[in-house]
Amino acid sequence: MQKENYSIAIHGGAGTILRNEMTAEKELAYKEALTAAILAGENILKQRGTALDAVEAAIISLENNPLFNAGKGAVFTHDETHEMDASIMRGDNLMAGAVAGIKNIKNPIQLSRKVMENSEHVMLCGEGAATFAKKMGFEFTPDSYFYTEQRHAQWQNAVAENKIALDHNIKTDEKKFGTVGAVALDMHGNLAAGTSTGGMTNKQFGRVGDSPIIGAGTYANNAQCAISCTGHGEFFIKAVVAYDVFCLMEYKQLSLEEACRIVVKEKLVKIGGEGGLIAVDKFGNISLCFNSDGMYRASVAMHQELLVAIYKD
Amino acid sequence: MQKENYSIAIHGGAGTILRNEMTAEKELAYKEALTAAILAGENILKQRGTALDAVEAAIISLENNPLFNAGKGAVFTHDETHEMDASIMRGDNLMAGAVAGIKNIKNPIQLSRKVMENSEHVMLCGEGAATFAKKMGFEFTPDSYFYTEQRHAQWQNAVAENKIALDHNIKTDEKKFGTVGAVALDMHGNLAAGTSTGGMTNKQFGRVGDSPIIGAGTYANNAQCAISCTGHGEFFIKAVVAYDVFCLMEYKQLSLEEACRIVVKEKLVKIGGEGGLIAVDKFGNISLCFNSDGMYRASVAMHQELLVAIYKD
Repeated sequence: MQKENYSIAIHGGAGTILRNEMTAEKELAYKEALTAAILAGENILKQRGTALDAVEAAIISLENNPLFNAGKGAVFTHDETHEMDASIMRGDNLMAGAVAGIKNIKNPIQLSRKVMENSEHVMLCGEGAATFAKKMGFEFTPDSYFYTEQRHAQWQNAVAENKIALDHNIKTDEKKFGTVGAVALDMHGNLAAGTSTGGMTNKQFGRVGDSPIIGAGTYANNAQCAISCTGHGEFFIKAVVAYDVFCLMEYKQLSLEEACRIVVKEKLVKIGGEGGLIAVDKFGNISLCFNSDGMYRASVAMHQELLVAIYKD
Repeated sequence: MQKENYSIAIHGGAGTILRNEMTAEKELAYKEALTAAILAGENILKQRGTALDAVEAAIISLENNPLFNAGKGAVFTHDETHEMDASIMRGDNLMAGAVAGIKNIKNPIQLSRKVMENSEHVMLCGEGAATFAKKMGFEFTPDSYFYTEQRHAQWQNAVAENKIALDHNIKTDEKKFGTVGAVALDMHGNLAAGTSTGGMTNKQFGRVGDSPIIGAGTYANNAQCAISCTGHGEFFIKAVVAYDVFCLMEYKQLSLEEACRIVVKEKLVKIGGEGGLIAVDKFGNISLCFNSDGMYRASVAMHQELLVAIYKD
């Protein structure tokens, strides 16, 4: 019989995160935030709670922290609002829930769980998702809650650049993907994964990235592993990243580490897809894999010390 | 060198399609519609046109025909409107485009292609997708165009049942999934896939099914195959159906036929996911695979006669 175990990993986004652009104060704030989030999840696992609850708790902690581009601190859309996406999946029965383009929901990950548990659907979008949220008794949080000075300044820069660039596509802030996510294995042997994001600064046209797409940004299956991605979403969708990691393990018997390395450091690099992912397999092995300069990340397991890291080396 | 070849397959939905519920007249109408659509696609391939153009032409033909649940003939949502989803993908460079929850667009597949070719994004949703369509010069087709007596009657039944069932989830028409799709291999050796749908009758909450999800409802990759699905979308999302077929070929060296059989007749059946798919591989082999009573389908290839079929046996 397998030794009793639990594991949890989280990310707070990947991208161009350089040591020389970071202050000691800012670095400390990120590390504190990551530590708080992973401990919120670990605390549940320690008490024999479920991977699903641990994933949700860790993501709520990250959503509530303005440092990350999810929940409070979500970036501004072109129309100066906040549109968020989230998804969650459990590995025991492959149930999943996702929301895209939702506004004024404090914790999108909670809404995605409600979709999974209280609707017959997997994915709800826009106005319709809001109607469902109302029906489920969710409070609508005012715009002011989501406002942060830093995100507003980023948005103003992006809008200004857009004007100068005469409608060319925005590049600002593309190089930092602040999506958050969590994956966990609980003591009952169940896996779960979740992802939550505010999307891209100044985004238009109801753009949906990989975060709410089961198979692309999020996937969990007790047969092998649980995965949550962060990066340039369009590439992650086309590469079906999360499910590809699963398939390399399931069909080619690769280890978690090898599967993640091939997908992130070979296949994604080849098509120009910057970003990374966190993953945990059914044995509790953890992979924190990215091809960008950094990824806000943390992990801990029953038999493994807490790791909190930002940069590549 | 490989012998010059082209192949194309289409579907007009799968589900409970029983011989004893069909009139000779209706059957003829469906067969005529399927024949017109596949010949529209084949005509392009014959003239050395691209798989992408052939897939688009075949789907436009199906969208324009009120018999199928896509474009004209799309089912009514809970709010008595039409919300449609579509996606398209090319196998040579993995470019993809998708739209979800769009209204008043005559041919959603054309809009998904515009997203692929004229935006940096893969997936656009709701109002934002409409703004993009406007910018691209799409005409907005009035609601009256999408109205068909049969769909309106289905909607009225669904609403009536809903009232009686006191808000329980709707079951009406769930057993027929009228999504349309096409897959093709062209003489240049390129693959493409596309899918278009009006979703579920009386659907609420901005529900998004598998049709606009790359990896679930649609996938194309010259390395192996192109796939378009139709069925109970929630199961197809959780099973990442289209990409799973690809992975079984890519990682386990299964044939197209064997990969489709395992996914549709074993894995989907196991989780209760009713429906089917059409697929073509890089050699031009075609699979029309479903686990329901019927699937509206047709196929033709350079070295293979036209097949037009509806039932299981």
